[in-house]
Amino acid sequence: MATGMLLVCGLALFLTIKSNLLHSQQFTISFQRPSDCSVEQFYDISSQSCVKCGPNQSTSATGLSCECVTGFRVLATNGASITCQQCPLEKPAVTEDGYGCILCPGSLTEQGTCQCPSGSILVERDVQGNPLEEARCEVCNGAEPALSAPNSYGDRCQRCQASLINTSQSCMCGSNILAGGMCFPPNNLPTAVNPNVNYAELVRQHNRAQFFKCYLSGCSCQALGNMCVMNMHSFSSVANDACGLYNTIFRATAALGSTQDISYWRANLPWLYYGDQPGLANRVLQTEPLPTGFSFKGRNRNTDINLVAAVYNTRGDFLQWEKVGGNNLQLCPDTARRQEAAYTFGTAYQETCVLSVADLLRVYAEPLFYDVFVDLSRGEDRRLLPLPTRNLNQEYNRKFINQGECGRGYICNLNDWYLSRRVLLVDTLSGREKSLGSLPKVIRIASSIRIGFQLVPGTQKGQVFPPLLSVTYSDVLITAPNTQTVSVSFAVYYEMDQTEAHMKTDIALGVLGGVSVLYSLVKTASWKRRIGSPLIDIETVLKFLLFYAGDLANVFFFITVGTGLYWLIFYKAQHFVSVLLPLPGLQEERFIAYVGCAFALKTVQFLHKLIQQLSVDIFFIDWERPRGKANKTIQGNGNGEAKHSPSPVSIWRTYFVANEWNEIQTIRKISPTFQIMAVLFLLEVVGFSSLALRDPWSDLQRPPQSYAPPYSLTLRYGLAATLWLCIGLLQIIFFTAFHERFVEDKICQFVDLCSISNISVLLLSHRCFGYYIHGRSVHGHADTNMEEMNINLKREAESLCGQRGLLPNTDTQTFQISITSRLRLQYDRILEPLSRRNGPSRLVDAASGHPFDQSTKAYHTMNRFLGSVIDHAHRDMEYVVRDKLFFERVIGMEFLEPMDKSIFYNDESHSFSDVLFYGNEATLLIFDTLFFCVVDLGAQSFILAGVLTYVQQMIFRLIRNGIGRRNLANKTLVDQRFLI
Amino acid sequence: MATGMLLVCGLALFLTIKSNLLHSQQFTISFQRPSDCSVEQFYDISSQSCVKCGPNQSTSATGLSCECVTGFRVLATNGASITCQQCPLEKPAVTEDGYGCILCPGSLTEQGTCQCPSGSILVERDVQGNPLEEARCEVCNGAEPALSAPNSYGDRCQRCQASLINTSQSCMCGSNILAGGMCFPPNNLPTAVNPNVNYAELVRQHNRAQFFKCYLSGCSCQALGNMCVMNMHSFSSVANDACGLYNTIFRATAALGSTQDISYWRANLPWLYYGDQPGLANRVLQTEPLPTGFSFKGRNRNTDINLVAAVYNTRGDFLQWEKVGGNNLQLCPDTARRQEAAYTFGTAYQETCVLSVADLLRVYAEPLFYDVFVDLSRGEDRRLLPLPTRNLNQEYNRKFINQGECGRGYICNLNDWYLSRRVLLVDTLSGREKSLGSLPKVIRIASSIRIGFQLVPGTQKGQVFPPLLSVTYSDVLITAPNTQTVSVSFAVYYEMDQTEAHMKTDIALGVLGGVSVLYSLVKTASWKRRIGSPLIDIETVLKFLLFYAGDLANVFFFITVGTGLYWLIFYKAQHFVSVLLPLPGLQEERFIAYVGCAFALKTVQFLHKLIQQLSVDIFFIDWERPRGKANKTIQGNGNGEAKHSPSPVSIWRTYFVANEWNEIQTIRKISPTFQIMAVLFLLEVVGFSSLALRDPWSDLQRPPQSYAPPYSLTLRYGLAATLWLCIGLLQIIFFTAFHERFVEDKICQFVDLCSISNISVLLLSHRCFGYYIHGRSVHGHADTNMEEMNINLKREAESLCGQRGLLPNTDTQTFQISITSRLRLQYDRILEPLSRRNGPSRLVDAASGHPFDQSTKAYHTMNRFLGSVIDHAHRDMEYVVRDKLFFERVIGMEFLEPMDKSIFYNDESHSFSDVLFYGNEATLLIFDTLFFCVVDLGAQSFILAGVLTYVQQMIFRLIRNGIGRRNLANKTLVDQRFLI
Repeated sequence: MATGMLLVCGLALFLTIKSNLLHSQQFTISFQRPSDCSVEQFYDISSQSCVKCGPNQSTSATGLSCECVTGFRVLATNGASITCQQCPLEKPAVTEDGYGCILCPGSLTEQGTCQCPSGSILVERDVQGNPLEEARCEVCNGAEPALSAPNSYGDRCQRCQASLINTSQSCMCGSNILAGGMCFPPNNLPTAVNPNVNYAELVRQHNRAQFFKCYLSGCSCQALGNMCVMNMHSFSSVANDACGLYNTIFRATAALGSTQDISYWRANLPWLYYGDQPGLANRVLQTEPLPTGFSFKGRNRNTDINLVAAVYNTRGDFLQWEKVGGNNLQLCPDTARRQEAAYTFGTAYQETCVLSVADLLRVYAEPLFYDVFVDLSRGEDRRLLPLPTRNLNQEYNRKFINQGECGRGYICNLNDWYLSRRVLLVDTLSGREKSLGSLPKVIRIASSIRIGFQLVPGTQKGQVFPPLLSVTYSDVLITAPNTQTVSVSFAVYYEMDQTEAHMKTDIALGVLGGVSVLYSLVKTASWKRRIGSPLIDIETVLKFLLFYAGDLANVFFFITVGTGLYWLIFYKAQHFVSVLLPLPGLQEERFIAYVGCAFALKTVQFLHKLIQQLSVDIFFIDWERPRGKANKTIQGNGNGEAKHSPSPVSIWRTYFVANEWNEIQTIRKISPTFQIMAVLFLLEVVGFSSLALRDPWSDLQRPPQSYAPPYSLTLRYGLAATLWLCIGLLQIIFFTAFHERFVEDKICQFVDLCSISNISVLLLSHRCFGYYIHGRSVHGHADTNMEEMNINLKREAESLCGQRGLLPNTDTQTFQISITSRLRLQYDRILEPLSRRNGPSRLVDAASGHPFDQSTKAYHTMNRFLGSVIDHAHRDMEYVVRDKLFFERVIGMEFLEPMDKSIFYNDESHSFSDVLFYGNEATLLIFDTLFFCVVDLGAQSFILAGVLTYVQQMIFRLIRNGIGRRNLANKTLVDQRFLI
Repeated sequence: MATGMLLVCGLALFLTIKSNLLHSQQFTISFQRPSDCSVEQFYDISSQSCVKCGPNQSTSATGLSCECVTGFRVLATNGASITCQQCPLEKPAVTEDGYGCILCPGSLTEQGTCQCPSGSILVERDVQGNPLEEARCEVCNGAEPALSAPNSYGDRCQRCQASLINTSQSCMCGSNILAGGMCFPPNNLPTAVNPNVNYAELVRQHNRAQFFKCYLSGCSCQALGNMCVMNMHSFSSVANDACGLYNTIFRATAALGSTQDISYWRANLPWLYYGDQPGLANRVLQTEPLPTGFSFKGRNRNTDINLVAAVYNTRGDFLQWEKVGGNNLQLCPDTARRQEAAYTFGTAYQETCVLSVADLLRVYAEPLFYDVFVDLSRGEDRRLLPLPTRNLNQEYNRKFINQGECGRGYICNLNDWYLSRRVLLVDTLSGREKSLGSLPKVIRIASSIRIGFQLVPGTQKGQVFPPLLSVTYSDVLITAPNTQTVSVSFAVYYEMDQTEAHMKTDIALGVLGGVSVLYSLVKTASWKRRIGSPLIDIETVLKFLLFYAGDLANVFFFITVGTGLYWLIFYKAQHFVSVLLPLPGLQEERFIAYVGCAFALKTVQFLHKLIQQLSVDIFFIDWERPRGKANKTIQGNGNGEAKHSPSPVSIWRTYFVANEWNEIQTIRKISPTFQIMAVLFLLEVVGFSSLALRDPWSDLQRPPQSYAPPYSLTLRYGLAATLWLCIGLLQIIFFTAFHERFVEDKICQFVDLCSISNISVLLLSHRCFGYYIHGRSVHGHADTNMEEMNINLKREAESLCGQRGLLPNTDTQTFQISITSRLRLQYDRILEPLSRRNGPSRLVDAASGHPFDQSTKAYHTMNRFLGSVIDHAHRDMEYVVRDKLFFERVIGMEFLEPMDKSIFYNDESHSFSDVLFYGNEATLLIFDTLFFCVVDLGAQSFILAGVLTYVQQMIFRLIRNGIGRRNLANKTLVDQRFLI
């Protein structure tokens, strides 16, 4: 027993604790909504909970209060609560105000009030307000002169509708036809009222009523017009839908004349269509510009697009004139500041967003109709220009008539279009099938609205043709409005006829392309001469194509940069608008193709030059002669006896020169990394990239709250290429004018080094053409100790010794050389054993004892041979020193062929750097520019472009260095280990 | 005459043309609005122009149609137009419907209809609707049981208001007081109804009426509550404004008990205040967490913040329960997707925008009131937690009581707050002074709404305390609504108590700081030993501080990187929420300060190392001995006689080695530019920077339409530093494990070069400490020709000769050396004449004949001296070769002092690179990391940081190279012209 009690008590305690735990959260309340209350409860808004109604009461329609049940009257009311009392049997009905009981003349309604037959009113009080014992039903007198009918409450007789009276001279429709709440005479009914649209019965009836109203009374045609707009301006020749009815009336009222001098605008009818004459769209859109021109800058700055709209509702009521802006055409929510950007001339505006269908149903419960105009008002002269509208969903005989393939612009087959007027944003009404309170089965939304401006060709005053409003509607089948979404977009675009620009580009391309053919031919001829071969073979053609690729790349490059810069300057700097950017897509396609060509061809040229550089012939001629006898200890001969032999000439000077040559292979006139960093800094940090936005402003830093238009690829390219070239040129100027003069000039240092180290350099870039750096020491010896070196340097600094030049008393140390074939043959013959060294290893082993021996032997032979040639010691390999003619320099070709004698051309400008990166800065710079721009055009990211350009430069530098070093080691016989 | 006609015709023609020109624009219409029409015109919506009304007509109130002037009735109506007819004298008045004429019992109104006295109705038709000849005025019977009064049209008697009947049992107020359209007994009036607010008379009356309504009848207290909210919950002890009245009722109804178990929520009253007990805010906000925890990932992912709000209008009507979201608290327009982000737990949301006052007036014509709750519903258990609200504008006795200085968080003096309930977004109503139709003089807007979540300390389940809603209202004086704007903001923030994290950081800082003192002391001791000075002087203290700076910088660096990484990992990767990011401002201040310290101290360390490196002593010992006699032609002695003297040892090997040393000065273990590029690529192109956003997601690429939360400085730092270090480490691994092993190792190459060129390098980084690279050729001679060089290299490759090490049969070429003071003194003595060379130039000219002579003499002396020391030829300058102890290596200090003998420590790891950039990669990498991060923290731009880091690296490299080269030239006596 005690155990049982303990158990029960424990359980009770446990349950208490558990329930406390469950609801122990302080301040929480249970969540009840009006819909959670039962039929006997009302929702008490003070306590936000359901409360039970009093006796004989039930919840009212709102659910927020109680009302008496049928047969009960309100006895007393005390603010929140009421008391109900049953009506006595002798007065079973409740009065309309709910406070009294009354006897009815007839039956009772479901709500327990008296019911009168249709056309009668219920009278419960006399005229002074005293309640009657028994209610009366009075019939309203509908005949002249009373013409009365019950009011909407059914408690008073009042004058009936004017349309009924007009038709029948009474409040009865009689033998006439009652449609849509109106009475019409039967003889005026068109026979074929059978609209073939898929819309609801509701709409069909409404159409018919509006038609009659409009057709017969001359008023309310706005409503019919709006019906037609809701039907997408579409009609067919057989069916009588809203637009068909509109057109019937339009034709029938031709006699009434037009409104406002516009022949498509009939009096009493809304203006919905521009006629269907061929070429009308063209005439409307491209004949007469707006009177005011647009201007981006200066005193006359005018970039405001003033659009106004007359707004109507479905019933055809005029609501107001609205300034277009804010969000009346823009369905996407955004800040006012950003939305305003759409109406700033020249700012390409594009906004797309996804809207919730539930929101649309809530906000756009009633469709609004917009007649959009351009406001041309200047001071007192207030005028409007209607905006022609292209409804892409417009059908005629069930065919879309405004959807011609057209790219993005509207310059295409414009004559096939049928322009119209009046747009609709969201139609949540016509899809309601049963009643206006039901959920629509389908809603129609203007999913794409685009306003396009076209510049008058050749204008200098910023004149534009009337803008075109293009609307595309989408139907959304309502299945789950709370989760459904629909994507909408709004755009304003600006275009101009680009054919003239394209033509100019084509002409420039043709002319420059022709010139470049000539130039490439000259180059090929020069190359033929330099390789000493007169035959025109397949290699010649190939070479010509390679040269042509390079020249054509330059042509494409300069044309595209010119075009980009043209747009950048002319678009961003113009005061009065005279040019507009090419549109993305079709209009920019050709430009992108040109950039692609430039890049592809430039790559070919670059690779060609790279391969040429990697196979250049080079030899270091050591002028040093042994000074005396070295105490050479013959190894292996243990007695340590010293034998006198000529002291060997140290190879270390050659190592030093070769090492330096190896190091200057990839130096450039600019710092490529600084180049990338500077361009990125200017574009992304300083904000130059803002200049490539499709708007007319040239501010570098835009506030983050402002609208950011899309980028123009043309401007991006123009901007990036220009910046890259400018910074490149600035760097070149800095390095040549300042750095090389005052800090360090690697090329001059190398020439000096040759001279100090008593070593000449022979470079053969072609078979019979090359460069010679004369490095014979003026002191006779360079292989000496520090003391003597310092003395030598000092003597030279004080001009106490001879000059360094090849010819006596000259300074010229660098030459371009054209050598005879004989000399070249001899050169090749000496090198022959070495080239064999690169063959299959078996041959080497078989043919010769030791590769080292061979190479040193070849080295010494070559050294002696070249030394003697330079010293004029070979009779049959003489040479002369000349200045190059100016014209020879310009076209880069030698006129004289080296038949008997080689020719050394004085060359102060160190043109031997042509076989290094240093001398090909132009090609490299343009290649880098194009690489950067092409990556950016593809990825729209300057940073990615910068990073990839860096990687590209690094890879090519590694290739050039690595293979160049191997080539150097092969050709000069200097061990690779010393090229560090 | 003819001339005159011609003139007139010409003028006419001109005028015609001119007028044509003016209006020649096709399709333009003149712009007329309803307001442009005169009083006799109506606005024809079909033609959108003003059209004259018919005779006896004037414009109606809407301006869109005509109506008959006073005294005229409508005779006929035909849709758009009407015809009017004057009423005859016997029936001078027009009926209410405008279609008939009637005789009046009394006077006429201004509109020409009959006028009845107040309390009477006008009867123009009998009960069946037949028009009367003469209108009647009937008095409504206001007594029991009729209780009737005229309806709002004045054409029918109906039951009068319940409140009147309740008070007086009739429709008269009688001796009672009529206020706000209601009747109240006089004895219940409080005496001090004198609200002291600056609001309009309208509001004051309304307040009073609502008070009576609420006080007396128990209903409609919602309206009074809303009045109080519109008054910012403010009241004073003396005045009876809305809140004062509310509190009066609150106190008076204590007996009624509370609602929903919440003691501050009285039945029939809205809940507006949490009580004023001290500490209540604390108890409400920080006692009990929400029952459900938040979780970012996994199966139990829960990031939805479910807020619901009960919405009321000014009249106190409950409108609906709304899910908070979309734009019901967010006034800034934005897409639904971005606005939703505000209710995703963990996403710091901040939106600010500028709204147009005109829009506000249009959209928020009626103020809405929100009771915001957290929806805690789980399945069937539907519960709500009220959101405590902190109204920053709340006043008590004209003092702001909720505006304590608080930083950003709400952990501060929380006990001084008075929490409240119910917020208001825009109040355009209470500022209307005269009528509800007038423009308000002032509007009140919730200019800042902030919802703050605080994490429960130590939670592992993502539990948070009830969120706090902070509201700040702003008053906008309406002057020009069309141009005025107002800035509003909405924010959701998340915070946790950071004191524990701060404490842990402080502990780590203290411990590591202490360790670094010890380490710096060891370094200082080591330095003292290495400079061979036992005295503790001011320089020692300075040196200690410099070492300490470096060590402390490392401590700060690793603590900050650790902290950043901790937040990055723990915040972004947590499943159940257990940490929240520190808030910007106060909570991040300390972190930023630590980063600043790390950077400043690291800079000191870096500059210290740089200066040390730039003043290192170096000498190249040439082991080469002359081979024989050179045929030296004494210049100036014209006879060309050859005199035999020892053939000079070529200096070119020394030049080569010096040149190489010059080149490896600034090489690093990583490529710094690649480092920058890779970091920029990962951050900006791959999108790692998204990880630093203040939200819990770790997606790298975010769609542009989604909400972009602000960046967290802590995360930015953690991310950037980690990426930088990771890429740096990867690069180091790549270069050491792959590149140096298989491609090129500059340091090894240099050591090899020394050996091949028969030159040793002595580096003295401290007075008595340095490095020695033993480069004595194993072949005895290196100054030889190519043939012999090749043979030597081949012999060595085939291991046919001795090993390169200093000791016989060892390979060790590199040593750390501790030299005796005696040796150092001797070294300095030899260099003495040279150091004088750097003095003022006058001294040089005076003291010595020729600087060249001196330097070469010193060079030869030094060469011989050092050679003999290495060869053990100096008895008193002996040395021993030892291995360094492991512990010596670890702490970087030598235990043995070189008293009699110098000590050469074997050093396989090429630690001589410590005097190059190469050996200090850690310092450089950390310095670069900090530089990058500090710039980024300051400018929030990774690109700018990258560019500036590049510039910084370039500048320091130029300095290191330039001054290092000069130092090398000075110390080794190699002419700068050979260091290219």
